[in-house]
Amino acid sequence: MTELEIDADSTAVLITDPQIDFLKPESVVWDKVGETVEENAVVDKIRRLRDAAREGDVPVFYSPHEYEDAEYDSWEHLNTIDQIMFDTRMFDIAGDGADFVPELEPDDNTFVLSPHKQLSGFWSNDAQIQLRQRGIDTIVLAGMSANLCVESHLRDAVENGFEVLTVTDATAAAGEEALQAALTNYGFIAHETAETDDVVERLAAAE
Amino acid sequence: MTELEIDADSTAVLITDPQIDFLKPESVVWDKVGETVEENAVVDKIRRLRDAAREGDVPVFYSPHEYEDAEYDSWEHLNTIDQIMFDTRMFDIAGDGADFVPELEPDDNTFVLSPHKQLSGFWSNDAQIQLRQRGIDTIVLAGMSANLCVESHLRDAVENGFEVLTVTDATAAAGEEALQAALTNYGFIAHETAETDDVVERLAAAE
Amino acid sequence: MTELEIDADSTAVLITDPQIDFLKPESVVWDKVGETVEENAVVDKIRRLRDAAREGDVPVFYSPHEYEDAEYDSWEHLNTIDQIMFDTRMFDIAGDGADFVPELEPDDNTFVLSPHKQLSGFWSNDAQIQLRQRGIDTIVLAGMSANLCVESHLRDAVENGFEVLTVTDATAAAGEEALQAALTNYGFIAHETAETDDVVERLAAAE
Amino acid sequence: MTELEIDADSTAVLITDPQIDFLKPESVVWDKVGETVEENAVVDKIRRLRDAAREGDVPVFYSPHEYEDAEYDSWEHLNTIDQIMFDTRMFDIAGDGADFVPELEPDDNTFVLSPHKQLSGFWSNDAQIQLRQRGIDTIVLAGMSANLCVESHLRDAVENGFEVLTVTDATAAAGEEALQAALTNYGFIAHETAETDDVVERLAAAE
Repeated sequence: MTELEIDADSTAVLITDPQIDFLKPESVVWDKVGETVEENAVVDKIRRLRDAAREGDVPVFYSPHEYEDAEYDSWEHLNTIDQIMFDTRMFDIAGDGADFVPELEPDDNTFVLSPHKQLSGFWSNDAQIQLRQRGIDTIVLAGMSANLCVESHLRDAVENGFEVLTVTDATAAAGEEALQAALTNYGFIAHETAETDDVVERLAAAE
Repeated sequence: MTELEIDADSTAVLITDPQIDFLKPESVVWDKVGETVEENAVVDKIRRLRDAAREGDVPVFYSPHEYEDAEYDSWEHLNTIDQIMFDTRMFDIAGDGADFVPELEPDDNTFVLSPHKQLSGFWSNDAQIQLRQRGIDTIVLAGMSANLCVESHLRDAVENGFEVLTVTDATAAAGEEALQAALTNYGFIAHETAETDDVVERLAAAE
Repeated sequence: MTELEIDADSTAVLITDPQIDFLKPESVVWDKVGETVEENAVVDKIRRLRDAAREGDVPVFYSPHEYEDAEYDSWEHLNTIDQIMFDTRMFDIAGDGADFVPELEPDDNTFVLSPHKQLSGFWSNDAQIQLRQRGIDTIVLAGMSANLCVESHLRDAVENGFEVLTVTDATAAAGEEALQAALTNYGFIAHETAETDDVVERLAAAE
Repeated sequence: MTELEIDADSTAVLITDPQIDFLKPESVVWDKVGETVEENAVVDKIRRLRDAAREGDVPVFYSPHEYEDAEYDSWEHLNTIDQIMFDTRMFDIAGDGADFVPELEPDDNTFVLSPHKQLSGFWSNDAQIQLRQRGIDTIVLAGMSANLCVESHLRDAVENGFEVLTVTDATAAAGEEALQAALTNYGFIAHETAETDDVVERLAAAE
């Protein structure tokens, strides 16, 4: 596994789903994700990645997950995870669950992509064009949840020719088995995997 | 050229860019598009298509075009039309240009897709998944502008296996030559082309 | 989890990478994948799925994986699994590794898609259009390897609105941990998971 | 309109459909395209672009168009141009129409992409990944036909963040009106348009 170069001109930090419904006890699925979110201190790790990115002049992109009434009412082809999200009205823009967690409110170094539907912004939001229009070819990836939205963004970034460093401890999942599945797959699909402490240092030192 | 079946269960009306900056005299590019917009009475034709769709229980999707400061400031690879839009701050969400025209305000039969960037929602918004999740395989396409966003949505819908009826007189463009280019290309790429009067009748009678 | 309807008019069997380099002892990575390929008797299970599909008049699509000298020599952004494949010249069309295994030679009920590059045909081959042009909206998915190409085809089919039944025992992977990662993720992302015995029966009875 | 920099490390020449069925009198649609193909001397212009690219160490990619019996027999959603191609069995790999024209046979500076289906390789072949894996961000685009495959490749390259120079006289179309439609649209969508004489000079001088 190579060590990617974190160049300020061509690298972005990409955070998936930094929202209440994954990261705060008021989440509608906290019984499923709460344990590994707290174990990994995900909010704090993403905050540190953001701060370091700002220090190194590396832009941060959020790829949020959102649904609304018209989708809950009319989607006809729900898979297992869709069904869970729709049953719990996860990421409902009418409530608070789709809000960004307060510690991670977008700032002037954050660009918020359109919401993705299902798991990957490369299929349903503007991730690709927003990154390419800024000359980004290297992505530092973290967020929620490890084996679903993070992993789908990883897979699709790779299919589109980006190099991806996945931060293995700034993420969590619906249980240890789901988290382990993600880590196993990152080991095959990412260009590099690293932990927050290491990545924070490299982001802050970017030029 | 076949005549497509307008089935209420599998057809949608898709309208691109039904916004002030294309359809109203306060548009920042009215000197370019105003003439053919008025000649074709585009706002009124789209309104008639919407009303007929509601009558036939056919859902309407809007694919809007939007930009914001962070894009005006940082996109590095502008083509000719991007450059025009960025110079005039067309579709700036900070102003009124990106607003829907009042006659075409979304109603409870309208689903608003995420904004597309550049010309096609199939690349940068959720057009594909929102249509497929509702069982749509046939699209009635109209809006602005004829040879740019309408035509790009047409081309990409076809690449993804949708059948497309393009409404040839519920659109306009930056001059007669641009409009003619679109009409020529629709003749090759659409499954059917038809005029508003005919389409309105078929939408209203959909079952 | 719902039980999908296997309708002969709108269902396809999709098999990823049914090739020597994953399924036969002469594979360049047999030391990695051989054990679970043999445990699961993957070749025999795929053969049974094919036979049943033919009986039920359900078409079969192959999405093969191939590389050639010009790629081995010039790709600049290899991730971990690319690096393994390039180091071993896996799926090299100049050798036998990219050939279909003899038991699974395409027949007159098999359509061979263009080769996919990296993990998903929905990004780099004609999977989407070949399926949609035939009215397919439901996919029965199996093949190699479980957590890489099968899972990427699953994720992307779902993003494009297909319903997917993943066959959990007609696949294998580079070790038990990789196989388990896939099974965990299928449980979230597929519309249905089922075993070969059950799927064979349903395919053969399709109408 | 800016003048793009032709850098040997990040530029590729992309040629669509350099095949018998568009460029030679034995084409099944020569009655439609022959006149503008000959007027523009398209084969000779593409040959000059190829030679200049080789001189400047700029790689050349071919995006061919192909169909086979299984497609002619089973595609259900043909648009107008599909219907023409299917009626004439254009680009049938069983005949000679899909062969490259002899003057443009791929050489060791040519990479042949998988065949595209319908009009754009960015949807149905490996254009995106083959270009990105080699660090390409700038495309010099030419080939056939002007308002169909060339224009669809142009539109999709732009949606994916490439900069595109379209060569306006190394292309042709099914009649003057179709050619004019393409030229009009290139003027909006390309980053630069230029003629062969100019582009040949810049390619040969690339570093």
